[in-house]
Amino acid sequence: MSLLSDQPPALPARDHLLTRRALLGAVALSALGTTAGEAAAPAMPNPGKQPTRIAMLVYPGFTLLDLVGPHTVFTGMMHTDIQLVWKSKSPVESDTGITIQSTATFDECPDDLDILFAPGGSLPTVELMDDAHVTDFLARKGERARWVTSVCTGSLLLGAAGLLKGYRATSHWVVRDVLAEMGARPVEARVVEDRNRITAGGVTAGIDFGLRLAAKLRGEEYAKALQLAYEYDPEPPFAAGSPRKAGEQVTRFVRDFYASYTTQARAAAQRAQIRLARETVK
Amino acid sequence: MSLLSDQPPALPARDHLLTRRALLGAVALSALGTTAGEAAAPAMPNPGKQPTRIAMLVYPGFTLLDLVGPHTVFTGMMHTDIQLVWKSKSPVESDTGITIQSTATFDECPDDLDILFAPGGSLPTVELMDDAHVTDFLARKGERARWVTSVCTGSLLLGAAGLLKGYRATSHWVVRDVLAEMGARPVEARVVEDRNRITAGGVTAGIDFGLRLAAKLRGEEYAKALQLAYEYDPEPPFAAGSPRKAGEQVTRFVRDFYASYTTQARAAAQRAQIRLARETVK
Repeated sequence: MSLLSDQPPALPARDHLLTRRALLGAVALSALGTTAGEAAAPAMPNPGKQPTRIAMLVYPGFTLLDLVGPHTVFTGMMHTDIQLVWKSKSPVESDTGITIQSTATFDECPDDLDILFAPGGSLPTVELMDDAHVTDFLARKGERARWVTSVCTGSLLLGAAGLLKGYRATSHWVVRDVLAEMGARPVEARVVEDRNRITAGGVTAGIDFGLRLAAKLRGEEYAKALQLAYEYDPEPPFAAGSPRKAGEQVTRFVRDFYASYTTQARAAAQRAQIRLARETVK
Repeated sequence: MSLLSDQPPALPARDHLLTRRALLGAVALSALGTTAGEAAAPAMPNPGKQPTRIAMLVYPGFTLLDLVGPHTVFTGMMHTDIQLVWKSKSPVESDTGITIQSTATFDECPDDLDILFAPGGSLPTVELMDDAHVTDFLARKGERARWVTSVCTGSLLLGAAGLLKGYRATSHWVVRDVLAEMGARPVEARVVEDRNRITAGGVTAGIDFGLRLAAKLRGEEYAKALQLAYEYDPEPPFAAGSPRKAGEQVTRFVRDFYASYTTQARAAAQRAQIRLARETVK
């Protein structure tokens, strides 16, 4: 298989279609090809015959960076089928005003996903917790998916679908505790893995999450090649990325500002819990 | 001015339009409002009357995460006019396959920008180094912009436009040295600032860059509130984000794979240098 040779394939010049995506896939494969020759039990890139099936939920008001961090890593994994899934194929406006296009409706989304993923957002996400069309979709796919995952407040959606009951999980720090209302055990950590659930903290945690999952699916060397290609060697300008570090004043204002949002998220979680209990009784 | 009161504005429930973008802007303003009451010389959020004018270049094959990191931070700064600029208003497909829409053509782009920004990419970016329509646009806007900035190989575009001659600058590590061909002084650092030029390293450096620039434009407390709201407290899964850390084998394969790309970028940089020297003589 020529992609597994240790010679990098020649790059055609002036080809708009040859993007970093293709480069990175080949990088990872070529690195792995050599690892295979050197290690006793090499990780193989997607040893199965089918592409890795990934469905990433999108919805009006979702946080774009929650999606683009992991989406970037997943596109670098090669041999994937990544769908951006929503109720319809209408354009979806993200939190930053950038609009993207979903690629599959709920009905078109493949079964037996390798990864089901939910990004977070602010009030639009809380609103979706009460949307049976969305929670039914997540519950149905999540029951069969190999990995059920989220970034930021995406975990509230997984919770509202009944997918985190009895699981350790995390979320954006301002609503992390709300997960308990839906039967999850909130954990203060950047990325929380419990059996096949992987939930990550706020917004920027999607890059850490994506690389960790890439390591599970493609091996550590593969994930390291992606991390180097994306030059993920962060240098945050301030010690302000968590309430522990940001200092009392900055933390108080961010927390106070989100107080109403947190209250609404908690109420939605309680409604979800009642609904889920009722469904269990039936 | 009510936005500067220390009371966070009430959140209307179930409002699709109230996204994290609006929340964050208000967070930062409310935090700053209080800082203003406590500090002797408070940083003010955009003290000018005009919104902060930001133009971010987009083009077929650009790296989406290069753009979305800083774009997310900039949208959180409030009182901004952010344009995604390309030759035409046709949809632009990024490196991951996600297509976005530009919001202004080169001709529609405002003059006297506060921030001119170029994202990177792989071969499409190198191709653009020879595109006079693009380099003329960057040169013209860059001459008058308050800050001239890039993430990843976006600095190759700034260089090809003659904007880095005599400046210290950085890029993605595989092509950082190529900047020297266009009269810049390559520096190994996550974010490099020299006078009004700010260039950042590969892909994920855009978040570090965005927060640093937010601190310049809106003050440190403002930037810290954004960092906390985005929960930017990174935990890379591996020590693999730079050639120094990734180990010899992973680094060799990523470097070898990019060898042809690096060669093509160098050739484009040399052509740009010859062209720029000719223009100077005229």
